[in-house]
Amino acid sequence: MKNTIMALIQESRFKELKSVIEKINVVDIAELFELLNKDQVIIVFRLLNKEKAAEVFSYLSRDNQQFIIESISDKEIKNIIEELFIDDTVDLIEEMPSNVVNKVLKNADDVTRKTINLFLTYPENSAGSLMTTELVDLKKEMTVFEAISYIKKYGVDKETINNCYVTNKFRKLEGTVSIRKLILSDDESLIEDIMNTDIVKVNTFDDQEEIAELFKKYDYTSMPVVDKENCLVGIITIDDIVDIIEQENTEDFQIMAAMTPSEEEYIKTPILMLAKNRIIWLLVLMISATFTGAIIRRYENVLQSVVILASFIPMLMDTGGNAGSQSSTMVIRSIALGEIQFTDFYKVLWKEFRVSLLVGFILAFVNFFRILIFDKAGLPITIIVCFSLFATVVLAKILGCLLPIFAKKVKLDPAIMASPLITTLVDAMSLILFFTLSNTFLDI
Amino acid sequence: MKNTIMALIQESRFKELKSVIEKINVVDIAELFELLNKDQVIIVFRLLNKEKAAEVFSYLSRDNQQFIIESISDKEIKNIIEELFIDDTVDLIEEMPSNVVNKVLKNADDVTRKTINLFLTYPENSAGSLMTTELVDLKKEMTVFEAISYIKKYGVDKETINNCYVTNKFRKLEGTVSIRKLILSDDESLIEDIMNTDIVKVNTFDDQEEIAELFKKYDYTSMPVVDKENCLVGIITIDDIVDIIEQENTEDFQIMAAMTPSEEEYIKTPILMLAKNRIIWLLVLMISATFTGAIIRRYENVLQSVVILASFIPMLMDTGGNAGSQSSTMVIRSIALGEIQFTDFYKVLWKEFRVSLLVGFILAFVNFFRILIFDKAGLPITIIVCFSLFATVVLAKILGCLLPIFAKKVKLDPAIMASPLITTLVDAMSLILFFTLSNTFLDI
Repeated sequence: MKNTIMALIQESRFKELKSVIEKINVVDIAELFELLNKDQVIIVFRLLNKEKAAEVFSYLSRDNQQFIIESISDKEIKNIIEELFIDDTVDLIEEMPSNVVNKVLKNADDVTRKTINLFLTYPENSAGSLMTTELVDLKKEMTVFEAISYIKKYGVDKETINNCYVTNKFRKLEGTVSIRKLILSDDESLIEDIMNTDIVKVNTFDDQEEIAELFKKYDYTSMPVVDKENCLVGIITIDDIVDIIEQENTEDFQIMAAMTPSEEEYIKTPILMLAKNRIIWLLVLMISATFTGAIIRRYENVLQSVVILASFIPMLMDTGGNAGSQSSTMVIRSIALGEIQFTDFYKVLWKEFRVSLLVGFILAFVNFFRILIFDKAGLPITIIVCFSLFATVVLAKILGCLLPIFAKKVKLDPAIMASPLITTLVDAMSLILFFTLSNTFLDI
Repeated sequence: MKNTIMALIQESRFKELKSVIEKINVVDIAELFELLNKDQVIIVFRLLNKEKAAEVFSYLSRDNQQFIIESISDKEIKNIIEELFIDDTVDLIEEMPSNVVNKVLKNADDVTRKTINLFLTYPENSAGSLMTTELVDLKKEMTVFEAISYIKKYGVDKETINNCYVTNKFRKLEGTVSIRKLILSDDESLIEDIMNTDIVKVNTFDDQEEIAELFKKYDYTSMPVVDKENCLVGIITIDDIVDIIEQENTEDFQIMAAMTPSEEEYIKTPILMLAKNRIIWLLVLMISATFTGAIIRRYENVLQSVVILASFIPMLMDTGGNAGSQSSTMVIRSIALGEIQFTDFYKVLWKEFRVSLLVGFILAFVNFFRILIFDKAGLPITIIVCFSLFATVVLAKILGCLLPIFAKKVKLDPAIMASPLITTLVDAMSLILFFTLSNTFLDI
């Protein structure tokens, strides 16, 4: 398919091209644009009809969006803005340089411009900044027949008609009714009698993460957004929620790997930005790790007499880190999915404690024979290493489950309490224990 | 709300209770069940009307589902199965003990039983195991009016009517048409003329991860599933996809923290299962870490003469681990989100190489002064530590980006190549370099 289209473009057979493109999904057309050179972008974009042009536009890369806005006429821009959903226009404005923003605003009608300005006042990642205003609102006095006629008349520009919203004359939200319910009801039924009044709604200032939770919990495909006075101001649709879920997950992955989170696509992030996002935590953790070094230095005399002890440091550190990271990851993830609360504190602690005893024992047991047989380190050292290992695993798992829960309690992101931080903490404690035991029980 | 309901239950005011419950969302009713004792579960469940009972049932915990099936009459079970969507029934059968499964199958009608058996033959996590068969299929010869009448007649039992599917007499999929398109079209239009023929569909054997990718890419809310002969056999809806996205993310989090992935909710997983999921990787990584110990033992003489070298081991190991985990996390995540392919290999490598030079240099620079001023380790040792640190960071970032890409290439899960494995690898290489340099350049 792509080859056919590229051939048609190269041979300037635009009429055929137009008819081919008309049959392709807008997402696929947008993907195609990434293969075109600047001239071709404009040519192919102009082959699209008004409605499709706006849809394709909303799926284009920022570079291509910017280039198109800079290249096309004011009238063409007007057409696009008219067709774009308001949330896509706002996204565009937030991401474009000022010359493009000006060109867009200049060509927006007064209502759109006012709406855009209102949207820009909502905090980033709030319901207000995610919603779109293109929704179907019905009145409860309407009959089903009247409602469907209304939708037939005004529905074409709405982002979705699958769910409709019932408001009173003050725009207060009174109920919701799905298109399914409308279709399956008698023409003469009153909206009032078939509408759903146990409305799950969000407020303009609610955070996207909470909103995503609600969508997941109730299996909705769209949700109404109301302002402080309970007036309906917009809707949020599931396609945006899917993006948010992935975005929140990416953020967690990044924080858990000791990075400053960024919404930028990796491959498009400049290296200076990547370095900036990574260096802070690396510096912090490096400095913390030097404290662990200081501990070793304090026990220099122990190491001096029994140098072989140094060879167990990597194994203790790595196993402690891994054991802690397992627990913290499970707990961070369970908090993110809403499966555990602060009240589950003792339950989690008790669970992790028992798991750590079990896992710690198995590791120490295996290690006992390994050290005796392969390392031939002698019984006293073997026992000290194995006991330290056991204690490290228990400690790591307890810290690994407690810290994320506490972080959540004090309104920090639990994801901070992940592998890197836990590893650094556990390292220090594990080595103190290891050297104290060695110092006390070995003949030094 | 919850308190009112609990009071009504305690006071056995069931008539009032029934009218209160009727106005509550099924998800919230299901949540309420978790607070009830066994007797109350059955009483409240029987207050629900047939349709709502099945909906609430599909949201209940497994324990409550099992208990209800075991307690209610065959006729009541029949009613539930009749109302449940086939994908929920199949989920139920897959998760219940055999006595419950038998009771369910015994009360299913022949068609349902046959469908269930067919579903059970699809591989876990395939489109076949996710789909539901309750869909609206239209014929292209229908007019819009006929189609809507058809939906009015048969739509009530369908999982969604928002998208309808057009099939020929052999059930081959010929097009899709949204309810929106139907509502907005003239009554006399032919389905053939308004249906969408650039159909994005999946095959019964496609994996859920790929399907989720398609949903994300095309912003769909449902997608048709066809068999090998392109016959329509079911649909997958977005609510299931949202669950899958979270499930796939959880799996990645678990694998990246060196655990065997499990779909079980953390708080409900027995500790033996938790320990089992964690011990394998801990053992593997512990054994690998002892190789790092062997490296240190090889350089015992170096350590013996300059014991202070041991105090830099934690810092080198932790920083290497963190630097590598940053890169591997970014790359694993980008692969999971479909942002990078194997062909981006050189691009990623070049990017990470430059980032590593930058980050490594800053870390070494800061460390240089810290060691000179605070540790007073002398210039030769300081230079060796800083150079080792720099090389470790570069190495860690290069391994961190290469290994996940290679894993993907050889069809392994890139998530395996995360922090724990990279850390173990980088540890060994970093210490070899550190001790070789020390051995060569220090007066030993």
